[in-house]
Amino acid sequence: MIGDGMGLGQISAGMYSNNNRLNLEQFPVVGFHKSHSASDLITDSAAGATAFACGVKTYNNAIGLTADTLPCYSILEEAEDRGLATGMVVTSQITNATPAAFIAHQPLRVMNENIAADFLETDIDIFIGGGLSYFIDRSFDKRNLRKELEDKDYLVYDYTQGSVHRVRMDLGKKFAFFTAENLPSGVNLGRNYLPYASQIAAQFLTQKSDEGFFLMIEGSQIDWAAHSNDAQWMIKEMLDFDRAIGQILEFAKKRGDTLVIVTADHETGGVAINDKSKMNRLRLDFTTNHHTAAMIPVFAYGPGARLFSGIYENTQIYHKMKEALEWDERAGVISEPEEGGRN
Amino acid sequence: MIGDGMGLGQISAGMYSNNNRLNLEQFPVVGFHKSHSASDLITDSAAGATAFACGVKTYNNAIGLTADTLPCYSILEEAEDRGLATGMVVTSQITNATPAAFIAHQPLRVMNENIAADFLETDIDIFIGGGLSYFIDRSFDKRNLRKELEDKDYLVYDYTQGSVHRVRMDLGKKFAFFTAENLPSGVNLGRNYLPYASQIAAQFLTQKSDEGFFLMIEGSQIDWAAHSNDAQWMIKEMLDFDRAIGQILEFAKKRGDTLVIVTADHETGGVAINDKSKMNRLRLDFTTNHHTAAMIPVFAYGPGARLFSGIYENTQIYHKMKEALEWDERAGVISEPEEGGRN
Repeated sequence: MIGDGMGLGQISAGMYSNNNRLNLEQFPVVGFHKSHSASDLITDSAAGATAFACGVKTYNNAIGLTADTLPCYSILEEAEDRGLATGMVVTSQITNATPAAFIAHQPLRVMNENIAADFLETDIDIFIGGGLSYFIDRSFDKRNLRKELEDKDYLVYDYTQGSVHRVRMDLGKKFAFFTAENLPSGVNLGRNYLPYASQIAAQFLTQKSDEGFFLMIEGSQIDWAAHSNDAQWMIKEMLDFDRAIGQILEFAKKRGDTLVIVTADHETGGVAINDKSKMNRLRLDFTTNHHTAAMIPVFAYGPGARLFSGIYENTQIYHKMKEALEWDERAGVISEPEEGGRN
Repeated sequence: MIGDGMGLGQISAGMYSNNNRLNLEQFPVVGFHKSHSASDLITDSAAGATAFACGVKTYNNAIGLTADTLPCYSILEEAEDRGLATGMVVTSQITNATPAAFIAHQPLRVMNENIAADFLETDIDIFIGGGLSYFIDRSFDKRNLRKELEDKDYLVYDYTQGSVHRVRMDLGKKFAFFTAENLPSGVNLGRNYLPYASQIAAQFLTQKSDEGFFLMIEGSQIDWAAHSNDAQWMIKEMLDFDRAIGQILEFAKKRGDTLVIVTADHETGGVAINDKSKMNRLRLDFTTNHHTAAMIPVFAYGPGARLFSGIYENTQIYHKMKEALEWDERAGVISEPEEGGRN
């Protein structure tokens, strides 16, 4: 689970705005990762998510590529190839940098239409997020990717057909739900699907494969609110993401076999809880509208959680996940097309 | 070991100013504490250190007192009573809030002369820090506490007699070294005793008792530099403290029986590593000249280290130390004078 832009300041502000309580407090294991990218001390979300997805440091803006612009084999793709069920739930466009890095391979994060097309290349079982327009209203080709998804056995819904809370999923099919034409609204403007969608995605995936599942959930708009230096919105996004964490923790506690990892790609805003703050009435100050380089907390629960203790590079998140999964390490880079490969 | 004012921003800035390396990276266990005091969401060092020393939340300014102004029994005092050797090494005055909370009981941190007198009430085996004037040049009484220390079998040195690097200690006596008349200078102005003094204090204490030892080491001036929003000085203080951590870790690794805990009382300055920063050439921005409320990282190494994982109140540092020491929990508060007690 990735809280985009969720540094220690955002976590602390959420907690102290919520009567000194967060679901994150239930995690027994804590660590820090170093978020710097191959090109910059201060990463962007594209390089940050590529580090998690593939275990490589790359340049800011790169989606699922190494610093040499070679496609890298993501943990989601490998999970799919190994027969696990896979999914992503986000509060940004589903083509935004963080989810994109797990499934797409593009030189620039702004290539949303290309990223959308890459969703057709991996049999991801469920995805929920915004960005419908990049699938159906395309400038560079005439493809209707919604139709193509349906042809690939996806049940596809969008926000105009009602809320995700009301949708019936079909276990015989894959599932896609577009929560917005482009950007989903902020939680301060009524968006409320993340905790519920996280929970139903986990339940859906459990039933899709006996081999287990890989699910990436992103609280995307903590970052957007922090870029805007909008403290109240940021806190609401933080607490919305924490509710999703609560849903997943509850699920994992019942099952006993699920590793839950919560972290961020980077901190945004350089935020501090300053003088005159009181419990549930904080005064936040920001130092920037951009990202910062502070180390990023990592929280882990479940089998293999202990691997995530200590201080390490962000790329180690990938390697630790693979160690926890007891997968053999392979080269993370696909430098040439493989037989049956997608590159 | 306490880095006063050492939040995640200070740690990250130290690391990224030091070729991406800190001794802190060697700690296998990480946690966070919540630093808020009984009176304020944003603690001061007095309440922060009292939480560590006694396991109680108290009001800002309180030295070794509960929120009801009752003296609390500190872990250093209990260690002394249980026959362990005890010590403190700091880069502030030895009467400053952090060391004071472990040995003194005063309603206000500014009562330096009273705090100095409290050093005569506990048989601490070694202390090294500034603040000689509060022992010998007293406004409120005519006591010469240096003389009284000598009468209590302390070997007492001060900075006018040469550097602490040159002093011979006598294992048959206790040891006090005053590094300054009042405030020791900053590491940017040539102070260099903390790593060496930490190491010799640990070695001295090992030989003073078969029951083990309790040693509190403070990198005091990370806080002072951050109050001044002086990024270069702050980074130098952070790295000086990290060198002391390196000395103690090396000592602990050789022995195998020493629990090392590193944390801070609070963050100071609300510092962020911002745009245009590069490795070893950071651009830091501060949001305040005061403390902030962000949660504070905790690092642990050695027997019992695993207890310090997760998120918890700062008072739990005390309780976790006692659990690691396998001491029975007693009431943390001395509400009435005990037989042979000091209150």
